[in-house]
Amino acid sequence: MERRVIQVSGMSCHHCNEAIKRAVSRVAGVAFVDADYRENRVVVEYDPQATDLDAVYRAIEEEGYQVVSR
Amino acid sequence: MERRVIQVSGMSCHHCNEAIKRAVSRVAGVAFVDADYRENRVVVEYDPQATDLDAVYRAIEEEGYQVVSR
Repeated sequence: MERRVIQVSGMSCHHCNEAIKRAVSRVAGVAFVDADYRENRVVVEYDPQATDLDAVYRAIEEEGYQVVSR
Repeated sequence: MERRVIQVSGMSCHHCNEAIKRAVSRVAGVAFVDADYRENRVVVEYDPQATDLDAVYRAIEEEGYQVVSR
């Protein structure tokens, strides 16, 4: 497993946390996601053999948020 | 039908709109709900014979928001 901390802007409440967690957890190879709107941060743990990180970023953006650092 | 505009604080995004709409639409007698986080406003249309407005306020509060004006 690898772990990546992604800075994300546009989250404002716990519903945003949940929306991102739901979307990112659907990406192939993702084992764990946490999202913290207070810290503008998403943490993802994933299998580097199975996960396309671009798909993770896309999942966040498709929920309406901006990926600030990859 | 009657219509009431309720001032609500604590909403921050479209997910909050949806959470309130879902919760309030379950209250007996409610025919229509709209929620606008930008205006801090919830609009409810209801059958005054069937709806307990206190149940509407409670539904909003149970979602974690504050009813500012009733």
